[in-house]
Amino acid sequence: MVYKLVLLRHGESEWNAKNLFTGWVDVPLSEKGVEEAKRGGTLLTEAGVSPDVLHTSLLRRAISTANLALDAADLHWIPVKRSWRLNERHYGALQGKDKKEIRDEYGEEQFMQWRRSYDVPPPAIEAGSEFSQDSEPRYAGEPIPATECLKDVLERLLPYWDNEIVADLKDGKTVLVAAHGNSLRAIVKHLDGISDDEISGLNIPTGIPLYYELDENFKPITPGGTYLDPEAAQAAIAAVANQGK
Amino acid sequence: MVYKLVLLRHGESEWNAKNLFTGWVDVPLSEKGVEEAKRGGTLLTEAGVSPDVLHTSLLRRAISTANLALDAADLHWIPVKRSWRLNERHYGALQGKDKKEIRDEYGEEQFMQWRRSYDVPPPAIEAGSEFSQDSEPRYAGEPIPATECLKDVLERLLPYWDNEIVADLKDGKTVLVAAHGNSLRAIVKHLDGISDDEISGLNIPTGIPLYYELDENFKPITPGGTYLDPEAAQAAIAAVANQGK
Repeated sequence: MVYKLVLLRHGESEWNAKNLFTGWVDVPLSEKGVEEAKRGGTLLTEAGVSPDVLHTSLLRRAISTANLALDAADLHWIPVKRSWRLNERHYGALQGKDKKEIRDEYGEEQFMQWRRSYDVPPPAIEAGSEFSQDSEPRYAGEPIPATECLKDVLERLLPYWDNEIVADLKDGKTVLVAAHGNSLRAIVKHLDGISDDEISGLNIPTGIPLYYELDENFKPITPGGTYLDPEAAQAAIAAVANQGK
Repeated sequence: MVYKLVLLRHGESEWNAKNLFTGWVDVPLSEKGVEEAKRGGTLLTEAGVSPDVLHTSLLRRAISTANLALDAADLHWIPVKRSWRLNERHYGALQGKDKKEIRDEYGEEQFMQWRRSYDVPPPAIEAGSEFSQDSEPRYAGEPIPATECLKDVLERLLPYWDNEIVADLKDGKTVLVAAHGNSLRAIVKHLDGISDDEISGLNIPTGIPLYYELDENFKPITPGGTYLDPEAAQAAIAAVANQGK
C-alpha cells in the first residue's frame, strides 16, 4: 500500500506582501496569492494527482487557496475537514507587527530566534488585544495558544495528523492538506525525520503542491517529497535563503 | 427548542445568463452571480444570522456561492458537508439545450410541463452523451438519475434531509443549505406542506438567504420563512412570474 499526500502552502497574503507578522490573524490572499492558488490547482491536474479529501486550517488564506486550487482542478466538490490544529504558528505578541521594526528594535539575533528557533516562542499575546483571537467563535472551547514555537505547532498538530489525516490515508484516499508555512514545516519534520536544528533551514514555497508517497509506516518513499513544479520551488527556496544577504 | 435554517439559492450562473437548461452540468457563476453570492453573505451578517454548518450540493455554482457568501460573513471556517442529493433537478435530455429552441420545437404546453409539472420528467439523457454525468468521479457508486421531475428531487433529497440536516438542527446548529432552484423548492414544499399543484407557482430568488425558524416538529413558525431582503425577493419573484407575459 502506497499512501498519497499533497501539502499546499497558501498563496501570498496581504500581510505577506506588507511584511507583517501574521500568525492567526485572518488576513485574505493578495491578488498574487489568488493567482498562485489557481496555478496550484492546475499543477495538480497536470501531474494527474487527484485529491479525494481536503484538510484545511481555520484561516481564510488557506481555505481560499484550497477553494481556488480545487476549483481550477475540477475538484471543488470533494469532502472538506477543517481544524485549528492546522493553523499557522501563533506569533504571540508579534502578531500585527512590522517585521523590519521588530528586527530594528530587538536586533537580528532575537529576531531570528523568534522566527527560526525550534523551541523559543515569542512573548505571549495579551488577551483581548487587537490581534488576539481568544474571543473568536471559531475557537470556542478549544485549548488555543497565546504564542507558539515550531515545537508547539508540531505538538498540537500531531493529534490531528494521527487521528484524522492518517485515518483518511489508511482509507486509501489521496489527502490534500492546505495550510501554512509553519504547520506544513511541522508535518515535513515529522514525516522526513528532520532534526530540531536542521528544520530551521527548511522553507516551503507558496502555492506549489508538495507531493508525498508514503510507505506502510507512513515514511516518505522519496525523502522530502516532490514539488509538482520543481524549478519554481527551487527558485522560491533560493530566494528565501538569500533574503537579507 | 427553535431550530434555525437558512436556504440560499446560488447566484446567476453562466448558463442562466445564456438561457440554457443546466441541471447537473457543472457551470460556473457569472460575474453577476459572484456579486449576488457576496451580497448574500452580507445579508446574513446584517440580520445577525450566523450559520454553524454548511450543506451544499456537488455543483460548482452552489459551492462557489457558499464559499463567497461565508467569506463575506467571516464564516468561511465553518464545517462543510456535501451531497449529490442537494443537486439541482436533473434535466435529462434537455441539459445543454437552449430553452427558447425547446419551446419552439415542442410548444409552450410541453415546455411548461417539463419545467413546472410536479411529476412529469423530461426524456432521459443518453448515457455517455456530452452533457451526461454518469462517468464523473464525484458520483461514483451513487444511484444517480438520468432525468428527474420535482417529485423525484424530493424523494432523493429526503433521506439527506432526514439523516444529515435534521441531525444538525437537533444538535442546535443553525444550518445553511446552499443549493438550487429545484432542490430548495423541494425542501420548501416539504417544510411548508405545499400541494403538488401549488408548488409549480413557487419560485426562489437567487442569492437572497431565506431564513426559517422551525418548531419541535420541524414545521415553520412563520409559513414560507423570511427572506433577509424581502423587497428584493418580492421584486425577483414578480419578475419571474411576469416572464413571457
